[in-house]
Amino acid sequence: MSNQLFVKMALDSWNSKINDTNRLLDKIADEKFQDEIAPNRNRGIYVLGHLVAVHDRMLPLLNLGDQMYTDMDDVYLSNPDRTKPITHSPGEIRQRWNEVNAKLSERFNSLSDDEWLQKHNAVSAEAFAKEPHRNRLNVLLSRTNHLAYHQGQLAFLKGNTE
Amino acid sequence: MSNQLFVKMALDSWNSKINDTNRLLDKIADEKFQDEIAPNRNRGIYVLGHLVAVHDRMLPLLNLGDQMYTDMDDVYLSNPDRTKPITHSPGEIRQRWNEVNAKLSERFNSLSDDEWLQKHNAVSAEAFAKEPHRNRLNVLLSRTNHLAYHQGQLAFLKGNTE
Repeated sequence: MSNQLFVKMALDSWNSKINDTNRLLDKIADEKFQDEIAPNRNRGIYVLGHLVAVHDRMLPLLNLGDQMYTDMDDVYLSNPDRTKPITHSPGEIRQRWNEVNAKLSERFNSLSDDEWLQKHNAVSAEAFAKEPHRNRLNVLLSRTNHLAYHQGQLAFLKGNTE
Repeated sequence: MSNQLFVKMALDSWNSKINDTNRLLDKIADEKFQDEIAPNRNRGIYVLGHLVAVHDRMLPLLNLGDQMYTDMDDVYLSNPDRTKPITHSPGEIRQRWNEVNAKLSERFNSLSDDEWLQKHNAVSAEAFAKEPHRNRLNVLLSRTNHLAYHQGQLAFLKGNTE
């Protein structure tokens, strides 16, 4: 019973953040993504591309499949904004955001409660034996916080009057 | 075993966000808190005061004691920035931030794993019987995300060159 309860709590938290972020993104016009989120800070399109790349890499990290869009790491993950040209349109990034999250959702729903407690792929079997909290569910908690962090920033792209 | 594991995961996640935020706050000079986080957005001092008030209210919400600073709700929680005068200095807000989190930490450490799964005070016994995920630990997950959201915003008060 307990495992089921905790998996539900962590998945609810993730889904709630994804839904909040999608509602926010619906309020931001495509052209606003070219703006800096705050003066001299990352552009909106970089932050959304970064979120796509981080979520996409959860597939191999959680042993749930291959990364879908390997062309994004170099631009949105390994390098700061404005060091590599961004060739994706806001529409393309939005589409990838939805596709990556849909794939994650499908894979998440296929996991049993016990499978959520299995190790992720960035920890060795030896380390995991001593540190059983380094499991898939822990990655989910961590990535939910990561999304919340950047959602707080993307909120600045919304109009002030809303 | 499982309960213990999940409580550890959720507490680690909370403590990690508190520590991240404290490291960030150490890099922001007192006078920077008077700045808007982004043009026409909340001032830094409002956001930090808001975090203090939200964390302070976790004490009664989790049935762990009384709120410490009831003079903050009206300014930082019930009303938007610039509608009520802010009379606290950045130094006072920082001190309250540390005191509230220290009190929470002390109370958190006194809870058994089973006590974390008890209901919080914003849910009725009847509703909790049907929805056992509405427990203390769920509030902790939710407030960790809330902190991450505003931490992402406070990061803009740091100098660009750091």
